[in-house]
Amino acid sequence: MQIITISREFGSGGRELGKRLADMLGFDYYDREIIAGIAANKDLDARFVENVMDAPPVWQTVSLTYGHSFALPTVQTLQTDLLLEQKKILEKIAQAGRNCVIVGRNADIILADYLPLSIFVCASMQSKVKRCIERADASEQLTPAQVERNIKRIDKGRSRTREIISGGKWGDRSQYNLIVNTTDWQIKQLVPAVAQFAEAWFQQRN
Amino acid sequence: MQIITISREFGSGGRELGKRLADMLGFDYYDREIIAGIAANKDLDARFVENVMDAPPVWQTVSLTYGHSFALPTVQTLQTDLLLEQKKILEKIAQAGRNCVIVGRNADIILADYLPLSIFVCASMQSKVKRCIERADASEQLTPAQVERNIKRIDKGRSRTREIISGGKWGDRSQYNLIVNTTDWQIKQLVPAVAQFAEAWFQQRN
Repeated sequence: MQIITISREFGSGGRELGKRLADMLGFDYYDREIIAGIAANKDLDARFVENVMDAPPVWQTVSLTYGHSFALPTVQTLQTDLLLEQKKILEKIAQAGRNCVIVGRNADIILADYLPLSIFVCASMQSKVKRCIERADASEQLTPAQVERNIKRIDKGRSRTREIISGGKWGDRSQYNLIVNTTDWQIKQLVPAVAQFAEAWFQQRN
Repeated sequence: MQIITISREFGSGGRELGKRLADMLGFDYYDREIIAGIAANKDLDARFVENVMDAPPVWQTVSLTYGHSFALPTVQTLQTDLLLEQKKILEKIAQAGRNCVIVGRNADIILADYLPLSIFVCASMQSKVKRCIERADASEQLTPAQVERNIKRIDKGRSRTREIISGGKWGDRSQYNLIVNTTDWQIKQLVPAVAQFAEAWFQQRN
């Protein structure tokens, strides 16, 4: 079985790259499905789950949105609980034995035993802001400065979560097989080259 | 004209990757030739030039080995002088207009106007130490600990030189189009995929 994991800076196009890669290779694709699975198993709202796992600070949101449970655990306990649930879901995906691309969720760490090809996707702040604004719904008209603050907040959360899970530094070259900086690229033009990396990886791994 | 630049951690296999890539693509290849050119133009010893440019501290070596000149400039003046000479040589290479792979020398910064594909090659310390020991001459039998110290010293020098030239952080993902971590690879298996990145890069750049 072949697993490709994609970690990414918010707005870098990592999700698009992952989706296109899965399409090209005929692999399954997992992204929001994992958060949705955690939310369903834990009877929580998916957006809340994403917030707790990805984007601290979350203290102020807990009492308002902590779903259907009557006990009100600390955020840390809750985060640990959700991370364990995420681990279960990722392992279930891997055990199904189908080739797949998994975006986010530190799947490269959690599924390290399956020897995934681990990719990190980044871009310049200017390029990320541009992409976010282009992709935004008409309803969410943010200024570039607001978008930049969002990007920084979300990536800070991802960075902290990775540290909790692996002790490793998010986005650091020591942590991944490949880092792709999408700044001056059209994502779709990158796909065949990344696919060839994947092919070489799974060939030599066997 | 197409230029591929390769920066690399010492022992990561970046030079081998660059050489194989040049062979595969039919590109010219530049590596030690640049240091040799600086040394020849400045009437200095090539190893000394490399030391001054790459691997501080060099204070103790200056008075012993500073070639045929009678004036004894400070190491900083000397380094600046050599960096300027390096710039001249790199620009001459670029102006020749032939496709090429250039390993090291911060060519991605110096030749930024030529829109090179900029690659950084890294590997785990264990992997780098192993590679260095495998490649060493029979005459230089160093212990793994000595090799590791060498790697750290050389990379510290490269890091400082990059900061002087660009203000940018050596090896940071923001600085390159692509970072390849060779830890679990055979270099030759990486070459076709990197070549495909290059092809896509030059295609969309035009």
